[in-house]
Amino acid sequence: MADTDNNQPDLPGQWPFLHRVRVRWAEADMQGVVFNGNYLTYFDIGITEYLRAVFKDDTKQLHEVFDDLYVVSTTMQYAAPAHFDEEIDVAVKTGRIGNSSLTFDFQIFRGDEKLVGGQNIYVHAPGGESAAVPKMLRDAIEQFEAG
Amino acid sequence: MADTDNNQPDLPGQWPFLHRVRVRWAEADMQGVVFNGNYLTYFDIGITEYLRAVFKDDTKQLHEVFDDLYVVSTTMQYAAPAHFDEEIDVAVKTGRIGNSSLTFDFQIFRGDEKLVGGQNIYVHAPGGESAAVPKMLRDAIEQFEAG
Amino acid sequence: MADTDNNQPDLPGQWPFLHRVRVRWAEADMQGVVFNGNYLTYFDIGITEYLRAVFKDDTKQLHEVFDDLYVVSTTMQYAAPAHFDEEIDVAVKTGRIGNSSLTFDFQIFRGDEKLVGGQNIYVHAPGGESAAVPKMLRDAIEQFEAG
Amino acid sequence: MADTDNNQPDLPGQWPFLHRVRVRWAEADMQGVVFNGNYLTYFDIGITEYLRAVFKDDTKQLHEVFDDLYVVSTTMQYAAPAHFDEEIDVAVKTGRIGNSSLTFDFQIFRGDEKLVGGQNIYVHAPGGESAAVPKMLRDAIEQFEAG
Repeated sequence: MADTDNNQPDLPGQWPFLHRVRVRWAEADMQGVVFNGNYLTYFDIGITEYLRAVFKDDTKQLHEVFDDLYVVSTTMQYAAPAHFDEEIDVAVKTGRIGNSSLTFDFQIFRGDEKLVGGQNIYVHAPGGESAAVPKMLRDAIEQFEAG
Repeated sequence: MADTDNNQPDLPGQWPFLHRVRVRWAEADMQGVVFNGNYLTYFDIGITEYLRAVFKDDTKQLHEVFDDLYVVSTTMQYAAPAHFDEEIDVAVKTGRIGNSSLTFDFQIFRGDEKLVGGQNIYVHAPGGESAAVPKMLRDAIEQFEAG
Repeated sequence: MADTDNNQPDLPGQWPFLHRVRVRWAEADMQGVVFNGNYLTYFDIGITEYLRAVFKDDTKQLHEVFDDLYVVSTTMQYAAPAHFDEEIDVAVKTGRIGNSSLTFDFQIFRGDEKLVGGQNIYVHAPGGESAAVPKMLRDAIEQFEAG
Repeated sequence: MADTDNNQPDLPGQWPFLHRVRVRWAEADMQGVVFNGNYLTYFDIGITEYLRAVFKDDTKQLHEVFDDLYVVSTTMQYAAPAHFDEEIDVAVKTGRIGNSSLTFDFQIFRGDEKLVGGQNIYVHAPGGESAAVPKMLRDAIEQFEAG
């Protein structure tokens, strides 16, 4: 997990993509903080909006790709909690594109403060069978990340 | 709404079906009580288990019917809140079977105390088009409710 | 329920307040539509943002009032479903301010199409005991609704 | 992550604790499988029930301990998905008790099939400050795990 953190930029401005979310009442628990499973919902929103940006708002491409991605592993490090009604930024970048897998890095910030970092690895599996990441997706991501 | 309440038995033992649920940590909010949207999840669990009993554990029939039911209205009255880790009973009965609609009554009890009452009206709409409630379903419910 | 609908404006532009939400992946179910309990989450977000507007972004006032409101009843009518990734507008207005209760009307629109209408009645109950709606809150709402 | 898996027993009967959960309609997504954030809810239910067993149903002790545990990291490996209405078993054991931290291992089984494995590390932090794991908790867990 140390490696994950080391590869993640420390400040929101150093990430290629940020998406703002406001914490909902139903997402905070009796301790007054966001229940940890809800951070995976934030990651999921983050990856959706990241891919929307990658595909320049082409919703059809976004949905086709999104439907074929299945998550195979998750790591999360919780540094500080988010609270009801706070605005937080979900930072997203592509960590690595393998033959049939995609690694996405996440960091949730409140202002410049790191709250929750993590990584999801997805496999590209149209019809349930893993297959090479389409060149179209690979190119679109590389072009987006290059700025 | 007064009518709804009037038709609902006051005690758990007077209902034809009860299903016990334990309140999860993530379902309680900052006020320490269950967020109101989660009661609809409890109603949904209740109707699933009620129909499982109606169909005598025939999962295939249960899923076929469940897939074709779409909720068209909900009413809920919140008398007292449920809290984290409490065991509550979801009481379910069929209120009325119309031509293409089914009205289910719900009451959530903690022991003998009424917490949340409600009613969901569903339309039977295989393929998205409303159609007569199948005789098989009508008969199974009437037989179950008759005891 | 007919009355509720009759009092609700038919078009989004006729409501005093709208808040846009994008449907999340985790909110859509196997039928491809939003699970009905999640509409109560949208209502809850709507009332939070409505009161934020009423209080002109004074977060402290918003949270104090919000903490003392407890929902006592809900009605919902589902006309058409929302789907994953759609942008929907949660329309909110105050229906009635009673001595210790507040009735809020909701309508969820996709463009000009009505998807889900509803009404939540809250009781103002600081410390768990119902008490008169504070004049500050009543005045702020009336001033906001008057435009 | 390989280490995590290697330390986890392959069969449900080899775990000191199992808790059965039925997948709810609202927990399955458009792909027909459980949304990954919901597995953290299952882990959370698992740890609650595990500690209930550790404390021999002493709810007061359970809640006191539970209130002071804050999760600091999560790892999850998704091998196969759970579907609506399936009964799954959440297996729980204590991986390691540090000075102020507790590592819990999880595995979700459907029958003998491994679906999702994971690990949560908690810090014992009453009042928000990390403190030594209470001897009472350490002893209770060790006694429970010893069988």
